[in-house]
Amino acid sequence: MAVVTQSLEELCINSIRFLAVDAIEKSKSGHPGLPMGAAPMAFVLWDKFMRYNPKNPRWFNRDRFVLSAGHGCMLQYAMLYLTGYDSVTIEDIKQFRQWGSRTPGHPENFETPGVEVTTGPLGQGIANAVGLAMAEAHLAAKFNKPGSTIVDHYTYVILGDGCNMEGVSGEAASLAGHYGLGKLIALYDDNHISIDGSTDVAFTEDVSKRFEAYGWHVLHVENGNTDINAIASAIEAAKAVKDKPTMIKVTTTIGYGSPNKANTAGVHGAALGGDEVALTRKNLGWEYEPFVVPQDVISHLGKAVGRGADYEKEWNKAFADYKAKYPQEAAEFERLLSGKLPDGWNQVLPTYTAADKALPTRKHSETCLNKLAGVLPELIGGSADLTHSNLTEIKGEGDFQKGQFQNRNIHFGVREHAMGAICNGMALHGSGLIPYGATFLIFTDYMRAAIRLSALSEAGVIWVMTHDSIGQGEDGPTHQPIETLASLRAIPNLTVIRPADGNESSGAYTVAITRAKQNAPTLLAFTRQNVPNLAGTSVEGVTKGGYIILDSQGTPDIILIGTGSELSLCVGAAEKLTATGKKVRVVSMPSTDLFEEQDSSYKESVLPKAVTKRLAVEAGSSFGWHKYIGIEGDAVSIDRFGASAPGGICLEKFGFTVDNVVAKAQALLG
Amino acid sequence: MAVVTQSLEELCINSIRFLAVDAIEKSKSGHPGLPMGAAPMAFVLWDKFMRYNPKNPRWFNRDRFVLSAGHGCMLQYAMLYLTGYDSVTIEDIKQFRQWGSRTPGHPENFETPGVEVTTGPLGQGIANAVGLAMAEAHLAAKFNKPGSTIVDHYTYVILGDGCNMEGVSGEAASLAGHYGLGKLIALYDDNHISIDGSTDVAFTEDVSKRFEAYGWHVLHVENGNTDINAIASAIEAAKAVKDKPTMIKVTTTIGYGSPNKANTAGVHGAALGGDEVALTRKNLGWEYEPFVVPQDVISHLGKAVGRGADYEKEWNKAFADYKAKYPQEAAEFERLLSGKLPDGWNQVLPTYTAADKALPTRKHSETCLNKLAGVLPELIGGSADLTHSNLTEIKGEGDFQKGQFQNRNIHFGVREHAMGAICNGMALHGSGLIPYGATFLIFTDYMRAAIRLSALSEAGVIWVMTHDSIGQGEDGPTHQPIETLASLRAIPNLTVIRPADGNESSGAYTVAITRAKQNAPTLLAFTRQNVPNLAGTSVEGVTKGGYIILDSQGTPDIILIGTGSELSLCVGAAEKLTATGKKVRVVSMPSTDLFEEQDSSYKESVLPKAVTKRLAVEAGSSFGWHKYIGIEGDAVSIDRFGASAPGGICLEKFGFTVDNVVAKAQALLG
Repeated sequence: MAVVTQSLEELCINSIRFLAVDAIEKSKSGHPGLPMGAAPMAFVLWDKFMRYNPKNPRWFNRDRFVLSAGHGCMLQYAMLYLTGYDSVTIEDIKQFRQWGSRTPGHPENFETPGVEVTTGPLGQGIANAVGLAMAEAHLAAKFNKPGSTIVDHYTYVILGDGCNMEGVSGEAASLAGHYGLGKLIALYDDNHISIDGSTDVAFTEDVSKRFEAYGWHVLHVENGNTDINAIASAIEAAKAVKDKPTMIKVTTTIGYGSPNKANTAGVHGAALGGDEVALTRKNLGWEYEPFVVPQDVISHLGKAVGRGADYEKEWNKAFADYKAKYPQEAAEFERLLSGKLPDGWNQVLPTYTAADKALPTRKHSETCLNKLAGVLPELIGGSADLTHSNLTEIKGEGDFQKGQFQNRNIHFGVREHAMGAICNGMALHGSGLIPYGATFLIFTDYMRAAIRLSALSEAGVIWVMTHDSIGQGEDGPTHQPIETLASLRAIPNLTVIRPADGNESSGAYTVAITRAKQNAPTLLAFTRQNVPNLAGTSVEGVTKGGYIILDSQGTPDIILIGTGSELSLCVGAAEKLTATGKKVRVVSMPSTDLFEEQDSSYKESVLPKAVTKRLAVEAGSSFGWHKYIGIEGDAVSIDRFGASAPGGICLEKFGFTVDNVVAKAQALLG
Repeated sequence: MAVVTQSLEELCINSIRFLAVDAIEKSKSGHPGLPMGAAPMAFVLWDKFMRYNPKNPRWFNRDRFVLSAGHGCMLQYAMLYLTGYDSVTIEDIKQFRQWGSRTPGHPENFETPGVEVTTGPLGQGIANAVGLAMAEAHLAAKFNKPGSTIVDHYTYVILGDGCNMEGVSGEAASLAGHYGLGKLIALYDDNHISIDGSTDVAFTEDVSKRFEAYGWHVLHVENGNTDINAIASAIEAAKAVKDKPTMIKVTTTIGYGSPNKANTAGVHGAALGGDEVALTRKNLGWEYEPFVVPQDVISHLGKAVGRGADYEKEWNKAFADYKAKYPQEAAEFERLLSGKLPDGWNQVLPTYTAADKALPTRKHSETCLNKLAGVLPELIGGSADLTHSNLTEIKGEGDFQKGQFQNRNIHFGVREHAMGAICNGMALHGSGLIPYGATFLIFTDYMRAAIRLSALSEAGVIWVMTHDSIGQGEDGPTHQPIETLASLRAIPNLTVIRPADGNESSGAYTVAITRAKQNAPTLLAFTRQNVPNLAGTSVEGVTKGGYIILDSQGTPDIILIGTGSELSLCVGAAEKLTATGKKVRVVSMPSTDLFEEQDSSYKESVLPKAVTKRLAVEAGSSFGWHKYIGIEGDAVSIDRFGASAPGGICLEKFGFTVDNVVAKAQALLG
């Protein structure tokens, strides 16, 4: 092999490439193409620009890095290893994509310290990054003081063609342009190859022009394969523009260095194969064995450790100064970072008696949200253009807008999916913010990928969903959830709560806030229409998921299980059935997820096995209810699409009446 | 009231406005703002450009109209009424948004002839329109002959700010630009108001520039409120450009004519109120009572009936000529329009014995799809950039591309949501096409809103989903479906089928094709990994949803219920349990949806009530299975997120082994 003298920079870049190539070759699974093409931009970013502390991946003021093209994760693992993170050792790299490893097939923040968000589903990462940048902008506007800056970092993203094809990225980019998020810098790995081959087959738009239309600052690096000076200059130029996010289109060759597979879809998502790995080594003049990195590279990139310690030290000093000058703000900042809630925060939540006025639970939600916003400055969010239907405005607070980033009311526009991914990004900023996102319950379908990722990636978000049944009314079946609650309850780690009245709404927020601080999302479903306050409901009951609100003497003949707006039908039916001599128990089940978390003796106390006559009542699909009603039970439910008519009429026509509950109960009782 | 002399055109436009205003006022529910602002463009389109036959709304060669901003549906109902459709009478308009009416709160194709697609969820309509235009382009390329044109129509859309904020519209517009769909003309009602107020709060991008970046021809009508000549000129100019879709930005005033509410969010989604209605009448010089339309308007717009009859007559003649010259093509065309399948179409589907080679069911899917494509020219579709993972290519067929629209392999790009809405549009073109769309099962989350709409709007689409469990392997939890099957089974009217082997894959396609012609969608879930062919599986069995594939003598002690790749575990476990003297029945349940459609005696014959020891085995969530296993049953399932590791390891670690099925069964048997 001819000895090729490589500069230190080339050695670093080729080290990244071959860590990816060799790890993927060993596991016979993965995506080498992106790391091989994007290694130069990653090197420039991590070596010359990004501020981070490898020995403290959670250091607050670090620049955030998101690999939106998550399939190229070996790029990120290589950088974490080479810059000295403890989370990724060379042994971890050898275990790429294996059971129990810290180097899974896509970046997962909950597995690998140093990874900020979980990516892979395309387009999510860039939208998460918009959320990270919004969190930074908000905290900076709120806490920084003239001459005393404690919040000041960039958010960098590498995204690919796939991300740019996904609608969620467009939604988020439009919003980022609107806000002028100057500290968001996206590097677009323009390698014009996706799984189906050349992007010519489906993606011939002018991406740069599109980002300009969104209001972004757009740059182009024509040779991203070798021109690292051009990459560095572009990032400099991006940083110089403070009032717009920057998109740097970096034209690269996917699988750069592979003589036969570069610039083909073949290198996108499969190991190169032994022969091609050897040819690529030869082509790039790489004389090192698999997983061996030249000492010069280790030494050079390892300097990130010292730099990072200095950054953190410097910031600690700045924060100490800040604390001396602004003790109150510093205390609040420290509380946020600690993840703790202020004492007595939940005392502000109201309770009700049955004598209190009937209201829609969305109205109770508005009350809770506003009461909580007063004591929890970390509560920040808004609606996807349904603010006054969802009732999610924090009153007396301004809008989060360019130049007004300290405000907490966010208008996401009609962009449910981006809203979801942005809320995830804000939560995963790790600064104690509790983001909330709102729309009609039915439109969770538009943002389901982001809701799932909140559950998977441990993002403490509150999803505030209103108009939760056919009680929605006139908008008709396109707007009326049927299967929606079931489909959300099925998502692991997501707690779904459908409160029945004022007390249960307070309970729902008690759980949601608590869980948010435990890095878990909660989805709340509220009615459009009025519901009465019921005797027996409680905050405490909600925390258990299911509980008895009305009971008979002795073993019940039948158990009526209700949720949300239908709980009052159960109470009404129980009264009528009791009058005919039946022993009736009414169980409120605002959250099957929370009920499942209870111990078996509690569950047995609420739903005794001996009582097999059980009737679930919910204005939604019966799907999933048989776990509680059994094969012998029944449900007052709706297992077809709804209809356009006033909400009360819809509920009545589809059988959500006291009389129908009584009739179904009597049928069960035989 | 001062008498204002109105031109006939003004009278027509104000008639549209007041039908909307008065219907919404009567129902006290609806969205008057859009119809008031967009009445001029609707008038120009329906009166001067669109070709349709009110007395035969399904006339094949009609121009298609889509109101993507579906909340403005009173605009469409007014047009249908005024142009003489029987589907919307003045009585129907008086019943706007009432139970059982043909004028629901959003346009629904299954309720109101003349409505092409179901809109309301924003962004879907413009993406459906891309599908309609693709269907036209495909059929035109396939059937038209030099000098003999039988497929030739435009697709017109009115969309709003909300549609343009949604990612799905961007995805679809990018693809439309890529294809250069010259017969797609979109009028963007640029009224700069959405529910949260001025679009200034969240939507300040340059929409025109964005569409230019997609490759569209873009025009601007500055005064869409009164300048109908400018609107007409723009549509003329749009028609003149044959190789690009056109977006005409028509700047309007939402709620035009309302003195106090025009140009405010207040007129978007609520009735004007009696006082404001009166003031609007005065302001626009409208002296007619509610629901009264001037006779001149009735006469003028009613001319559409005669024109439409002429269009159809003319087309019938052209088709007769075509039929004389091209009898074979004409016969095929007529078959397509009839909705009938060719005799013996399903004979091409293969069957297997247990001796046949183990293969992934996605491979069986590929075989079925290719066999069927040979006999069903109406089968057209593709993947969201996973063609060679989903195995959905029709071999020997070219790609659907600009200038090659006769081909049937569509590359949707990484745009799952647009793929869904486009497939819906192609199906609802009503020309017998059977579109299919493919991605990984997990990414149904990205396109769920479109899948739901396929079920609601009776679109005969086949959703081909592969990599259907943690058997997906190394890509990890972001790519491994857990709750996905449950969440899809919960959707009304959608039939989900998860076949176990070759025979069941043939059965799955038998059902899917049959249902497509009945205007109903089917979702198929296939494995990435190999599965054996099993004794006892059959096409016939699949059509029943659940059936016995292995049985004991007499009443079974236990029933094992398996689906897909886990059915073979049930068979293996049954053998072991039988060896210990247990009487075991194995039920294959590829589709709970189809099983539910069977009569109760069949269901009892498969799952007798007397047998309460039941174990479901599926590499997915247990959510929903208790309907079949009861409270006393159990499931071998996975109710947490998966992990990155080789698929076989994942399945084993999470308990999907014969031994674990045996152990769980023994635990149930006590």
